[in-house]
Amino acid sequence: MQNTYFTPGPAELYPTFYQHLQQALDEQIGSISHRSQRFRDIYKFADEQLRTLLNIPATHGIFFTGSASEVWERVLLNCVEHESFHLVNGSFSQKFYDYANSLHKHAHIQEKPFGEGFDAADIEVPAYAELVCLTHNETSSGVQMRPGEMHKLKRKYPKKLFCVDMVSSAPYPDLDFSLIDSAFFSVQKAFGMPAGLGVWIASQACLAKAEQLEKSDTLTIGAHNTLPMLWKHYKTFETPATPNVLYIYLLGKIAEDFNRIGIDTIRKQTEEKARMLYKFLDSSADFSPFVKQERHRSQTVIVATVGSPERPTSSTDVISSAKTANMIVGSGYGKFKDSQIRIANFPAVSVEQVGSLIEQLQK
Amino acid sequence: MQNTYFTPGPAELYPTFYQHLQQALDEQIGSISHRSQRFRDIYKFADEQLRTLLNIPATHGIFFTGSASEVWERVLLNCVEHESFHLVNGSFSQKFYDYANSLHKHAHIQEKPFGEGFDAADIEVPAYAELVCLTHNETSSGVQMRPGEMHKLKRKYPKKLFCVDMVSSAPYPDLDFSLIDSAFFSVQKAFGMPAGLGVWIASQACLAKAEQLEKSDTLTIGAHNTLPMLWKHYKTFETPATPNVLYIYLLGKIAEDFNRIGIDTIRKQTEEKARMLYKFLDSSADFSPFVKQERHRSQTVIVATVGSPERPTSSTDVISSAKTANMIVGSGYGKFKDSQIRIANFPAVSVEQVGSLIEQLQK
Repeated sequence: MQNTYFTPGPAELYPTFYQHLQQALDEQIGSISHRSQRFRDIYKFADEQLRTLLNIPATHGIFFTGSASEVWERVLLNCVEHESFHLVNGSFSQKFYDYANSLHKHAHIQEKPFGEGFDAADIEVPAYAELVCLTHNETSSGVQMRPGEMHKLKRKYPKKLFCVDMVSSAPYPDLDFSLIDSAFFSVQKAFGMPAGLGVWIASQACLAKAEQLEKSDTLTIGAHNTLPMLWKHYKTFETPATPNVLYIYLLGKIAEDFNRIGIDTIRKQTEEKARMLYKFLDSSADFSPFVKQERHRSQTVIVATVGSPERPTSSTDVISSAKTANMIVGSGYGKFKDSQIRIANFPAVSVEQVGSLIEQLQK
Repeated sequence: MQNTYFTPGPAELYPTFYQHLQQALDEQIGSISHRSQRFRDIYKFADEQLRTLLNIPATHGIFFTGSASEVWERVLLNCVEHESFHLVNGSFSQKFYDYANSLHKHAHIQEKPFGEGFDAADIEVPAYAELVCLTHNETSSGVQMRPGEMHKLKRKYPKKLFCVDMVSSAPYPDLDFSLIDSAFFSVQKAFGMPAGLGVWIASQACLAKAEQLEKSDTLTIGAHNTLPMLWKHYKTFETPATPNVLYIYLLGKIAEDFNRIGIDTIRKQTEEKARMLYKFLDSSADFSPFVKQERHRSQTVIVATVGSPERPTSSTDVISSAKTANMIVGSGYGKFKDSQIRIANFPAVSVEQVGSLIEQLQK
């Protein structure tokens, strides 16, 4: 019997993935040239579907990389001459900050403890920061920053470039791309695909910055997947190097399926399933929601502390028990490995499947 | 009817690809965690199979990136403080050199015209070059540099790091990794997989260099997929970020198939098919081999000039005509697009299929 993956990435494959893959194999998409019209049509289709789904305006390009982690590096190289600013409240926002240090950027940090979230009112952006790096959904701790707060912050600092890591939440967050300059995600989370493709959305303002930095004698914007090179090829729906053609095809098809359902419905279903999970955690004697502030609770990666002083248990027991019912749940991240579980709430799992998981956890 | 792809990448999928993919789907490899024992087993298996196939010693690690083009950047960032040296005789060796310039390395170049190749005796490596960048198979022009010449050159310059681009030829070239410090390839060429995974082989000497450079206050070795980070995770067969788990699984399985056949047999079959193609080109009134020196003629990407003064034709006609027989042949590269065709000779196409292609071209 097949397992259902409630893990926060790699995750359950989207149900239509298999039929799209079969179609791609029938059409020999794995063998076609990335300089052919067939590929340009595939890129254009994925671009159109993602644009509709995420409401991306014509000011922004959509590019493909090897992974979302690669985009951390690309956006820092291409959009920061000296200083970046990072909101850090977990392991992945921390890595974004670490990347900036590795690239010898002057990286400013504002921190909150693991499990706590940011609101616009908390935040002071340093005067010379060029890029504000936000994480919509901190996969490690299950904390979200609401888009409204991001937009508020950008309005306060309109001249700075804003970049949003939405790796483990896209297409859920309703970002206003008239305010957000760049965002990125990977396909093995809410899009229900295997890992191996990153998606980078970037505005003309980001491009202008990269083109300015590219002229520097001392600083480099990198050599591979630089924004000017990506954009140059993007004009004809090509890529600088051979991309993951098959996954771009599959992403376009799954984005089309999402558009058929409608992004509003997908968001409502996500919230409905999240409500079910948090309601269960709030009322359970054996679990409690790790994130205390409701407004900071992630809708796509739900983190629960397992056990209670009266009934101690470990995540290992919970995970093993769920596995016997063919449900795969994620462990806590890092030092919370044993004391927490993480449940992905992506479109690939239905209300019924979430219901079954809750029943299982109740046992 | 399905086409047979004789294109130099993306190319024909290896015949066993489909059954391995089905097995991977049955085992839900697209959903498993990259921090699980299952993934570590997959990485270890691919490592063992590639190690056997390419005769890679324990001094070298095997790492996965988004593409081979990414490795151009990584090896330059991690192994060059100031100066690199590049043999350039086509579009891809040129790109390797361009990457070095984009990264503000002092990049030395020795050039030969498109269609000509290098021997050790031709080459003088500049005194302060730290990394010697060689291209085993120039995909654009169908020129190879024989491994024996590379080894001879390394013996002349034993203290320099040697890196070999074998993107469109691995596993064909029999590199001696006691001499070659680093090599890389992508999976959509001779391994017969869809594009989306790069493979980087690097020695402890490369690692030592990267660790030394990492301490610099002025220079950066990058942030994503740095060699020290890749190697640290490699010790337990993990990766710094989520890799293309599915393709690593498939690569291990195809490498295992290659090992079952035996690398000697694969090399002999490659040479046999290349001999058939060059023999045809040499004797044809309508085609001629583009590369004049036999020792520089690629065994894996055969480039032919189409037409003759008496019987002029264009590559478009040849390609269209082959397509009617469900055979897809590549066009010439860049300015040779109309006057040349390129025929990939990878393990995915059999002696019989090459025979059929020759019959078709004879028409």
